[in-house]
Amino acid sequence: LTPYASVEWADGLVRVLDQRRLPHEIVYRDLVDEGDVAAAIRDMMVRGAPLIGAVAAYGLALAARRSAAATPGELLADLDRAVGMLSAARPTAVNLTWALGRVLHRTGDPSIGGVEAIKWAALDEAQRIAREDVSVNLQLGHNALPLIPDDATVIHHCNTGGLATVGVGTALGIIRAAHENGKRLHVLVDETRPRLQGARLTAWELRELGIPHTVIVDGASGHFMRTKVVDLCVVGCDRVAANGDTANKIGTYNLALVASVHRVPFYVAAPTSTIDLAIPNGEAIPIEERPAREVTHVGEEWITPKGTLVANPAFDVTPAAYITAIITEAGIAYPPYDASLAALVKRGQAGVAR
Amino acid sequence: LTPYASVEWADGLVRVLDQRRLPHEIVYRDLVDEGDVAAAIRDMMVRGAPLIGAVAAYGLALAARRSAAATPGELLADLDRAVGMLSAARPTAVNLTWALGRVLHRTGDPSIGGVEAIKWAALDEAQRIAREDVSVNLQLGHNALPLIPDDATVIHHCNTGGLATVGVGTALGIIRAAHENGKRLHVLVDETRPRLQGARLTAWELRELGIPHTVIVDGASGHFMRTKVVDLCVVGCDRVAANGDTANKIGTYNLALVASVHRVPFYVAAPTSTIDLAIPNGEAIPIEERPAREVTHVGEEWITPKGTLVANPAFDVTPAAYITAIITEAGIAYPPYDASLAALVKRGQAGVAR
Repeated sequence: LTPYASVEWADGLVRVLDQRRLPHEIVYRDLVDEGDVAAAIRDMMVRGAPLIGAVAAYGLALAARRSAAATPGELLADLDRAVGMLSAARPTAVNLTWALGRVLHRTGDPSIGGVEAIKWAALDEAQRIAREDVSVNLQLGHNALPLIPDDATVIHHCNTGGLATVGVGTALGIIRAAHENGKRLHVLVDETRPRLQGARLTAWELRELGIPHTVIVDGASGHFMRTKVVDLCVVGCDRVAANGDTANKIGTYNLALVASVHRVPFYVAAPTSTIDLAIPNGEAIPIEERPAREVTHVGEEWITPKGTLVANPAFDVTPAAYITAIITEAGIAYPPYDASLAALVKRGQAGVAR
Repeated sequence: LTPYASVEWADGLVRVLDQRRLPHEIVYRDLVDEGDVAAAIRDMMVRGAPLIGAVAAYGLALAARRSAAATPGELLADLDRAVGMLSAARPTAVNLTWALGRVLHRTGDPSIGGVEAIKWAALDEAQRIAREDVSVNLQLGHNALPLIPDDATVIHHCNTGGLATVGVGTALGIIRAAHENGKRLHVLVDETRPRLQGARLTAWELRELGIPHTVIVDGASGHFMRTKVVDLCVVGCDRVAANGDTANKIGTYNLALVASVHRVPFYVAAPTSTIDLAIPNGEAIPIEERPAREVTHVGEEWITPKGTLVANPAFDVTPAAYITAIITEAGIAYPPYDASLAALVKRGQAGVAR
């Protein structure tokens, strides 16, 4: 599907592409236990809500494999400890707890007989989550096709491609599907400060895919909407609340407001695993504060005066009112989102159960 | 006034602070002729619309001083050539052509007798422009005081302080005046990609002034308006059209739109020298496209994949409808701006003539 694998299970190891080294170096890392996996997520060696979920599930499979437990009860206690470590790695993306919950649900099935069977079930569920991520995103991209005009200029924020998922991508998966269906797109790539996932990762993926693109600074989106035709914006998400409020990479809310003023459609690509019906609205979504160094430095280059205070929220919340539609693998949700999202989540879960 | 001088005339040289080396190094450069001055402006060794104007005027004084002309006619021809070089250095800020025009108007006075007197007049006018810049900004900051509440959180974009002017600053001059008048301010400093004038220069100036501040990425302004009280935004400008449309550093328009949605007052600080009544609206303001390297690199750090295309407009235009008020040394202009700006420009010129 892609010339690179963001994550794979390899001989009892989890092998990930170290995204901090892109676009200049392709470096794979082998993670051997759940501590490695938690650190890889926390330090953003891997990032992107769907990928975080899949890698965390593999982390739990690693914990199961390495456990010295003699009984199912001991093994499940080991898994609980691993879940505690993995779920604390990053707070905002709900996919992390969703994926860990799926593995626990599977391993906790009392009908599974014995330690080895539980270990196998953990790995099988992790691999299932990874496989489903690819098929879900293919379907999501297909579902979006009627919304994407031909000859379209698209603004995209952060990275939501194969690198943010197990494969294909969410918002970038939509762009890819439209491209592969013969629609001519030009992508204006928000560079996405502070970590520059757009400039580093999305530009790299679009080049690999052969999709025309131009990198812009985040503050320029309004200028381009005002001075040339921008047909749509499409972004991913880290968590969608029941009412449609959406947490995504910092800068998403500004882009949504600017699009709203210009009446440019603003779409959120959301696998149903990213929709958290347990949270009524965006106020309840925890927003991660990341280290100041992400803002004060770019690589080894120190930007600010030494000692300068920085606020570095990694995400923001875009209220549902500024979102034109939320595109999932189970269909497209339109406002009012309370009803439409609940229906799609139900359909999404039914799809998984099949 | 400040612990540093952005520009000074020193023994027949123009000495400038090399702003590309801030905040980590204080390096002064001596410019010896108009070619040096044009390069310093083009390469952004000096930047900020008012400072560009003052430095360009000094460049013309240098050209006069170095001219080997034997007659007034030859000297004025040399000055015309220098004006051509200097005015081409950067297109957007109107202060550049405004300042050069003032020197030319002075040196072109047929009542001046002889070559040496013309040379003296060129220098005198340049020094007058520089002195006036300081007094204009002090007055502008004073005029703004009624608009600034106590205990205010302010978002500021780019750099508009002593570094962007001969001294004091425009938008930052307002913040400074409020601070010195005992109003407790906290400044959220937009880092201002791509050149990071906020993170590099504004953070440095605010530290020197002892004004509390926090650096944020440009995309975070909406998040802070949504989650905490932001009382106002204040920015500078490179050119204000007759109808109030304002060209300023890229990212200003996004900030204005985000402020508008949140009903946060959005103020533009504009010495009347920055108001261009000859231009009816923002459509006619030339927007400079700067080198791609400003986006692809931070210092020596290469961000994007090699060969990635970049669009790098240095400025954007904020339509007058999103500007709460335009603050000048001659008073505060409110909408409709056609009438209010014309009146203030008249009063500003009268102030200069006094």
